[in-house]
Amino acid sequence: MIRVGYPATLDGEPLRVSEEIELVPLADGLDHEIEVDVWVPDPYPTRALRIWSHLRGVRLVLSLMAGTDWITPIVGADVTVCNARGAHSVSTAEWVVSAVLAMLKQFPLFLDVQRAGDWRRRREAAEEYERQTGDTRRLHPAAMVEELTGKRVLLVGYGTIAREIERLLEPFGVDMVRVARHTQSEPVVHPVSMLGELLPDADVVILMLPLNDWSRGLIGSAQLARMRRGALLVNAARGAIVQTDALVPALEAGRIRAALDVTDPEPLPADHPLWRCPNLMLTPHVAASSPEFARRALSVAAEELTRWLRGEPLANVVDPAQ
Amino acid sequence: MIRVGYPATLDGEPLRVSEEIELVPLADGLDHEIEVDVWVPDPYPTRALRIWSHLRGVRLVLSLMAGTDWITPIVGADVTVCNARGAHSVSTAEWVVSAVLAMLKQFPLFLDVQRAGDWRRRREAAEEYERQTGDTRRLHPAAMVEELTGKRVLLVGYGTIAREIERLLEPFGVDMVRVARHTQSEPVVHPVSMLGELLPDADVVILMLPLNDWSRGLIGSAQLARMRRGALLVNAARGAIVQTDALVPALEAGRIRAALDVTDPEPLPADHPLWRCPNLMLTPHVAASSPEFARRALSVAAEELTRWLRGEPLANVVDPAQ
Repeated sequence: MIRVGYPATLDGEPLRVSEEIELVPLADGLDHEIEVDVWVPDPYPTRALRIWSHLRGVRLVLSLMAGTDWITPIVGADVTVCNARGAHSVSTAEWVVSAVLAMLKQFPLFLDVQRAGDWRRRREAAEEYERQTGDTRRLHPAAMVEELTGKRVLLVGYGTIAREIERLLEPFGVDMVRVARHTQSEPVVHPVSMLGELLPDADVVILMLPLNDWSRGLIGSAQLARMRRGALLVNAARGAIVQTDALVPALEAGRIRAALDVTDPEPLPADHPLWRCPNLMLTPHVAASSPEFARRALSVAAEELTRWLRGEPLANVVDPAQ
Repeated sequence: MIRVGYPATLDGEPLRVSEEIELVPLADGLDHEIEVDVWVPDPYPTRALRIWSHLRGVRLVLSLMAGTDWITPIVGADVTVCNARGAHSVSTAEWVVSAVLAMLKQFPLFLDVQRAGDWRRRREAAEEYERQTGDTRRLHPAAMVEELTGKRVLLVGYGTIAREIERLLEPFGVDMVRVARHTQSEPVVHPVSMLGELLPDADVVILMLPLNDWSRGLIGSAQLARMRRGALLVNAARGAIVQTDALVPALEAGRIRAALDVTDPEPLPADHPLWRCPNLMLTPHVAASSPEFARRALSVAAEELTRWLRGEPLANVVDPAQ
């Protein structure tokens, strides 16, 4: 029998892909050693880490998440780690598009106006537009909400989720520019060495790449300084891709805007200056937490498990250096 | 010469479509009678109404807006009124998509969490999801943000802006259902008589139709009662299409959610209960107010003016009963 350990809070039945499988639900309070061949970690890292200390014999880890940067160091190089590639593309890509639109439409300001119950405060949106973008043409009627249509979007990273973002943005007729570690020609993906050169022309910069030694701190003060005034930085990947110490002053100075679903550190402590930054929308790492999460991720894990049992090449093995 | 009166705050040059045209800038403080053949009203109704009382000889009105319900009654049946069809499709359709996504992603709640600076409050989003939708499966990990992908969207009205909304929603793979006064078969547009029958199956109901005797109060307590629990009503057309007295209790009871850019009355007075309603995002009639507004709308008006000068059929004449 192949013993598959999975979070007891999930319905593990989709993982019963053959008669060889023995399902081992792993409850949060587990207090004894337990043998499993395959481990499906809890989506919450703290719970998963508590379980891990009791596991023995793990040969394969099937993560339900896209990002596995916290898993690979703990399980070591001898254990194969696979992610749930594709399972979170829809929800995460939707969050990115939603955040871009919410910022361009000034929804944070209008929520304040709604709470104040003062219709006349709509004029603040025009002042905010001028202040944020530096567009001082004093348009009539006053410009209050920007359009995404026609904007230049710079995608940093070009994996499954980035491609899904591009697909959702297609009808907006954005001018899409892509950079990634692996270049390609159709569509054109520029090398990351061109990032500095491409940043000044982007209205929206979307980070969608894994966290590793190479991407850690990729966006620092030099990169932020090259961004256009009022440009929007979006991060739904991993907080540490952006240097928080560089981001805070750029937001406070009103140089750029940002929308973040991830932060560094995470969770963000109550007294962290990022909470109080202007020109920022921050959600607490929720982009992938949709009602469809478990069903899709377990289905991806079950397919990978089937390949492993059959001795077929695995589809979603994580290269720790990638 | 053909005298074309236009708001002095705009650059009227795009309206100089022939040598016959004499441009007459109309400043807000106008205090004497003035003859014009063609009137381009100020986008702000109150300013336009002040100007109108001084105008004589108007034969053609070229509105810069999509909705002309406030213009037709004041100019009377002998004056031809044209709207700026298409000029606001992009911005208004973008607002609608932005508002739908912001509500599904719970951005109003997360903005509160951001202001409170308390990461742990993310769990409230899962409670809110369960409360709003009635989905009591207690999913793991907790569901915090819904997906638009796969949702059923009911478009009420199928004019230029509604078609643009449909175009922007295409990559989300929504199940689109359409009702309008004028039925058609490709794509299928159902008669409005079927509205009551179609409401219970919709996750999102988008109102995008002109205000007239027929559409006024179209959505009342009977229609709201037929909507699914937690369904989202979106109105960026005209406030009076929805009966505010019926909407307020439906929101307060948590039966449905709503996103409104328009209200009845408008502007909404400071003490109006709609400001305080839960499950509601309200913006103060800003959807079309983009930086591209004037350029696009003047271009549509200039094309119509050219047709009128040449005696060609006009493209965007408003039928007051439509």
